[in-house]
Amino acid sequence: MQEYDAGRYDVAVVGAGHAGIEAGLASARLGCSTCVFTINMDWVGNMPCNPSIGGTAKGHLVREIDALGGEMGKAADACFLQSRMLNRGKGPAVHSLRAQIDRREYAGWMKHRLETTPNLDLKQAELIDLRRLDDGNWQVITRLGAVYTCRAVIIATGTFLGGRIFVGEASWEGGPDGMFPAKELSVALKRLGVSLRRFKTGTPARVHRASVDLDQMEAQPGEDPVVPFSFETEHPGPNRVLCHITWTNEQTKQVILDNLHRSPLYGGKIEGIGPRYCPSIEDKIVRFAGKPRHQIFVEPCGLNTEELYLQGMSSSLPEEVQLKFLRTVKGLEHVKIMRTAYAIEYDCVDPLQLRPTLEFLDFPGLYGAGQFNGSSGYEEAAAQGLVAGVNAALKLQGRPPMVLDRASSYIGTLIDDLVTKGCSDPYRMMTSRSEYRLVLRQDNADQRLTPVGRQVGLISDARWQRFQEKQARREQELKRIRSTVIPPTKKVNDLLVSHETSPLVTGVHLDDLLKRPQLNYEVLKPVDTTRPDDLPLDVQELCQVEVKYEGYIRRQQSQIDEMRRLECKLFPEDMDYTAIAGLRLEAQEKLGKIRPRSVGQASRISGVSPADISVLLIWLEQHSRA
Amino acid sequence: MQEYDAGRYDVAVVGAGHAGIEAGLASARLGCSTCVFTINMDWVGNMPCNPSIGGTAKGHLVREIDALGGEMGKAADACFLQSRMLNRGKGPAVHSLRAQIDRREYAGWMKHRLETTPNLDLKQAELIDLRRLDDGNWQVITRLGAVYTCRAVIIATGTFLGGRIFVGEASWEGGPDGMFPAKELSVALKRLGVSLRRFKTGTPARVHRASVDLDQMEAQPGEDPVVPFSFETEHPGPNRVLCHITWTNEQTKQVILDNLHRSPLYGGKIEGIGPRYCPSIEDKIVRFAGKPRHQIFVEPCGLNTEELYLQGMSSSLPEEVQLKFLRTVKGLEHVKIMRTAYAIEYDCVDPLQLRPTLEFLDFPGLYGAGQFNGSSGYEEAAAQGLVAGVNAALKLQGRPPMVLDRASSYIGTLIDDLVTKGCSDPYRMMTSRSEYRLVLRQDNADQRLTPVGRQVGLISDARWQRFQEKQARREQELKRIRSTVIPPTKKVNDLLVSHETSPLVTGVHLDDLLKRPQLNYEVLKPVDTTRPDDLPLDVQELCQVEVKYEGYIRRQQSQIDEMRRLECKLFPEDMDYTAIAGLRLEAQEKLGKIRPRSVGQASRISGVSPADISVLLIWLEQHSRA
Ligand SMILES: Cc1cc2nc3c(=O)[nH]c(=O)nc-3n(C[C@H](O)[C@H](O)[C@H](O)COP(=O)(O)OP(=O)(O)OC[C@H]3O[C@@H](n4cnc5c(N)ncnc54)[C@H](O)[C@@H]3O)c2cc1C
Ligand SMILES: Cc1cc2nc3c(=O)[nH]c(=O)nc-3n(C[C@H](O)[C@H](O)[C@H](O)COP(=O)(O)OP(=O)(O)OC[C@H]3O[C@@H](n4cnc5c(N)ncnc54)[C@H](O)[C@@H]3O)c2cc1C
Repeated sequence: MQEYDAGRYDVAVVGAGHAGIEAGLASARLGCSTCVFTINMDWVGNMPCNPSIGGTAKGHLVREIDALGGEMGKAADACFLQSRMLNRGKGPAVHSLRAQIDRREYAGWMKHRLETTPNLDLKQAELIDLRRLDDGNWQVITRLGAVYTCRAVIIATGTFLGGRIFVGEASWEGGPDGMFPAKELSVALKRLGVSLRRFKTGTPARVHRASVDLDQMEAQPGEDPVVPFSFETEHPGPNRVLCHITWTNEQTKQVILDNLHRSPLYGGKIEGIGPRYCPSIEDKIVRFAGKPRHQIFVEPCGLNTEELYLQGMSSSLPEEVQLKFLRTVKGLEHVKIMRTAYAIEYDCVDPLQLRPTLEFLDFPGLYGAGQFNGSSGYEEAAAQGLVAGVNAALKLQGRPPMVLDRASSYIGTLIDDLVTKGCSDPYRMMTSRSEYRLVLRQDNADQRLTPVGRQVGLISDARWQRFQEKQARREQELKRIRSTVIPPTKKVNDLLVSHETSPLVTGVHLDDLLKRPQLNYEVLKPVDTTRPDDLPLDVQELCQVEVKYEGYIRRQQSQIDEMRRLECKLFPEDMDYTAIAGLRLEAQEKLGKIRPRSVGQASRISGVSPADISVLLIWLEQHSRA
Repeated sequence: MQEYDAGRYDVAVVGAGHAGIEAGLASARLGCSTCVFTINMDWVGNMPCNPSIGGTAKGHLVREIDALGGEMGKAADACFLQSRMLNRGKGPAVHSLRAQIDRREYAGWMKHRLETTPNLDLKQAELIDLRRLDDGNWQVITRLGAVYTCRAVIIATGTFLGGRIFVGEASWEGGPDGMFPAKELSVALKRLGVSLRRFKTGTPARVHRASVDLDQMEAQPGEDPVVPFSFETEHPGPNRVLCHITWTNEQTKQVILDNLHRSPLYGGKIEGIGPRYCPSIEDKIVRFAGKPRHQIFVEPCGLNTEELYLQGMSSSLPEEVQLKFLRTVKGLEHVKIMRTAYAIEYDCVDPLQLRPTLEFLDFPGLYGAGQFNGSSGYEEAAAQGLVAGVNAALKLQGRPPMVLDRASSYIGTLIDDLVTKGCSDPYRMMTSRSEYRLVLRQDNADQRLTPVGRQVGLISDARWQRFQEKQARREQELKRIRSTVIPPTKKVNDLLVSHETSPLVTGVHLDDLLKRPQLNYEVLKPVDTTRPDDLPLDVQELCQVEVKYEGYIRRQQSQIDEMRRLECKLFPEDMDYTAIAGLRLEAQEKLGKIRPRSVGQASRISGVSPADISVLLIWLEQHSRA
């Protein structure tokens, strides 16, 4: 291939999936000239699996991305079909937004957003090589011989890198949704010294609406009023579609068990490791053998298509078997498949090779983001893309990195998990991954992160002002709640008794009443006479949660303060752990490999003991004194 | 690959491009259970080249498709961005509609139309094999082992069959727009005995609007009021975008000439034959060496994208060279390429293997349509798809075929050209291909073909009634025009003189005035006092043309009558030309190969002389008497 000099960019982003989009936008918005490359420009921000964004813990990620100045939440608000706040029956920590999305519209929207962002070029080109220059710059090379010289490169290749599709006995090299895979880049990365491994994931069939008997299923409407993902969306549109729920049964199970030998996974053809928390239906049947049935969500893929997505039925069994087991399900007796379910195996990295900025430890200027880093899911990808894009830009500008700690966000937790503990299967965000759940709520994502986004430079003046106004309203209202005294009048006591909680004998502060489990902000409205009536819903919710869970939050906050003490103790860049007397050998090895940024991060490395941490603390103490 | 019985359809359509769409819709609408297969369901009705429909002669095809009950015109009306009637300055025969189209919207619209058509299933599956059963049925086999048994198969594989992409020195197996090619099906067709050949075509780069200086170019607005393609569209939307025009120059030429050795075509890497009438820019530079400049139309690809299409700049030169020559053009000095121009080489058939129904002569039940038949262009493809779909259905229903003769339509002309004369390069429709241009106008396509569509069964009762009402209005108005006498008043004569034509001495019929070149229907309005004022524009236009060109049309009609005499003289299916005494050897061979349906078709075969035709006529005379 004859190469040619195609010019320079500050940052090259390899991929226009959910990770690449956020990476490219962040870097460009921070002023770096940025090029986003994609194999197929028609599907920027493609959703190769579920046509939805958010869900438990994932919804938190989207709000955090938005709070930092990212794009995913805005796109989801623009293209959603149905929205619901999940887990409303449970505590506020696990309330999570989830929206069905119009897949085609979303891809078009995101593409246009990239096209209209200053400093950003979007190019359809497959990168097949990657070179580090002696001056620290990088070069990326396309299949057509274009050589771009860049100061940083962000790899966000998703499931395309070394992609291979499996359906029963059939298998071929391919990316998702009938797109070409990226083969050569794997070789180039290995040549560079990046170690790759094989993961896999899968998707269910898309079926035709007219072949499904939705009347046999439980309808699941959206929730009104619609709560938007983005803190900037003022008027979200209406819910426009219904989803439906049905279940597998004993017959489904039998068909699958009878055909397990035809699965490429059980037949040993797939070597990649699949996501533990998004198993295929055959995995679920095998692993939860006692479970009589599994839930299936039947979800529209768009407003102008009859394709339905069958959440929960991901499979790599032969098409014939897929049809057979689907047709055992109530409402799917006559189902017609439009696109067959498949599994995809792909190359990704062990994220222990990365820093918390998502830069490679060994390759300054090279970053990884998204599925490439061993995660799974659109939201996880987008979160990493944003972090990688921001940090690439900050580094090029000689500014300090943006490292989000575990107490700041799910994003911080996700990245800390990846780069400190690694992952043995595609990593998916879950609320149980966070030890600070009560603080990391979806409703306060802006409180936690918009100041960070502002400092980085992703929050506009107008947005910052609106944020500060919201802050002021919140503080005012908290103060009012804490200082308002509710008297023991008949009206008050009638209300309390009617909600099965004891009446007052003396006046009490409003916040004390709010803390009672039987009561809430809404219920107390009739007796809360000084309440301002123009308080936005989100501020109300924020105040209520902060007051109601005050004690728990305070306790969690002190754990956070404790944790942060260690998080501030940074190691020097060139730390040589083998030279530290008293460190156990295993600890030396692990620390040398993962090269933690801080004592905090070190303390979470498996194989590093509390005693090792003490040694490190003492060493740092001496070191800083010297 | 383990195969399985995936069920039965009356008709299987291989391809959901412009040909496959019309074929599938026609067959399903005529009551045949139909399955449309596509390699990539995300791009049903994709436009891999110009984001536009219509144009000289092509616009006629779209109107004819619509008049017969096809879909292309309606989709274009729903998704157009800008519309113009080309060649208004010339005679009515060459007036042609052309519209810019939103490519993404069009593909979504067409997909949904297929999804919502009764009797039609749309499936994403690559067909890799094709078998003829002893009972006359066919089987198509997908990559995943699904075996569908069908009574007819329509091949509409476009540029995917054996697709290979070329850009300078780079080349790989691929379909258009980064989709997978169809490799195995070529082998299967050859095994069956279908003879394939290689054609090629190419497309220009897509560039970013912000990198183009449109102010340096000539703006080309749409035309108001918008004339829709479909006779059923009552309220077409507004024009929404501007196109622009610029030109190549001597410098452009020089860059191309300097780099011609790097062209895969001139370097001998491409063996396929390209379209003579859509040459690449390097072809134009070489073939029209004296021409100082070539026109470039700069056209938006959609409403929500910044991609611009550069009509006229198709190329397979290396990307580096493309960038260099584009940047010599006024307004493109700083152009940025988003998608690189490329050429694609693919397998197609010699259409002499087909009947005028588009069924293979040697393979009953197997049809070809679109690019696969050796044509080029969306409209040409759609026209053939409609004809193949209709004829497959008619045959399965035991009804007589729909064969459109050359005098009926451009569609008939296109197909007659293909199956009678064949084509040595990708066949494109042009008005010069028709000897009956004045009769085959875009304004009267419904007059010519809606009765045919009605008879076939593609025209609904409601539409048929509206058509008959329009017919009645037209006849009424023609009658009125021919019987109205315009008196030699001062007002009339002033008007005539002001239009530089001689005043009246006695009263004359309105049609005589209309025939004067200086006058037209609009101009005569003030003196045409009995004119109904609710006459629709299309009826006015129709009447005016019929009156104004009456003499020419009458002459053409008598040629047509003459031609049709021979067109009705049908040969028996099992005609043995070698047994006909008096036929020259060459004629015997040609007739035996092409197996014309009628003496008319035979008379157009190159190598069949008028003397041969006399022999055939005599033979038929005797034969029919016997
Ligand atoms: C079949 C399937 C099933 C899935 N199932 C689930 C699931 O059940 N749950 C879940 O949470 N997640 C699932 N996912 C994962 C989810 O789709 C991904 O995590 C998410 O899309 C990752 O985003 P990304 O940005 O990392 O990569 P992607 O969205 O895959 O984007 C990768 C981008 O990189 C580009 N690219 C790759 N290589 C090159 C190159 N060499 N040159 C130029 N461009 C390149 C591609 O064109 C693309 O734009 C599934 C994915 C697939 C394909
Ligand atoms: C790069 C390029 C440049 C072009 N330039 C011009 C031009 O300048 N002027 C012009 O008039 N025309 C041009 N064309 C041609 C125009 O695009 C085609 O003529 C038109 O799209 C043909 O329509 P079709 O329906 O025959 O095929 P296509 O639109 O190509 O559709 C083919 C369909 O067949 C499906 N398919 C193929 N094989 C299989 C299989 N084995 N199993 C299942 N499905 C299969 C595909 O998925 C697709 O849906 C160009 C095309 C390309 C690709």
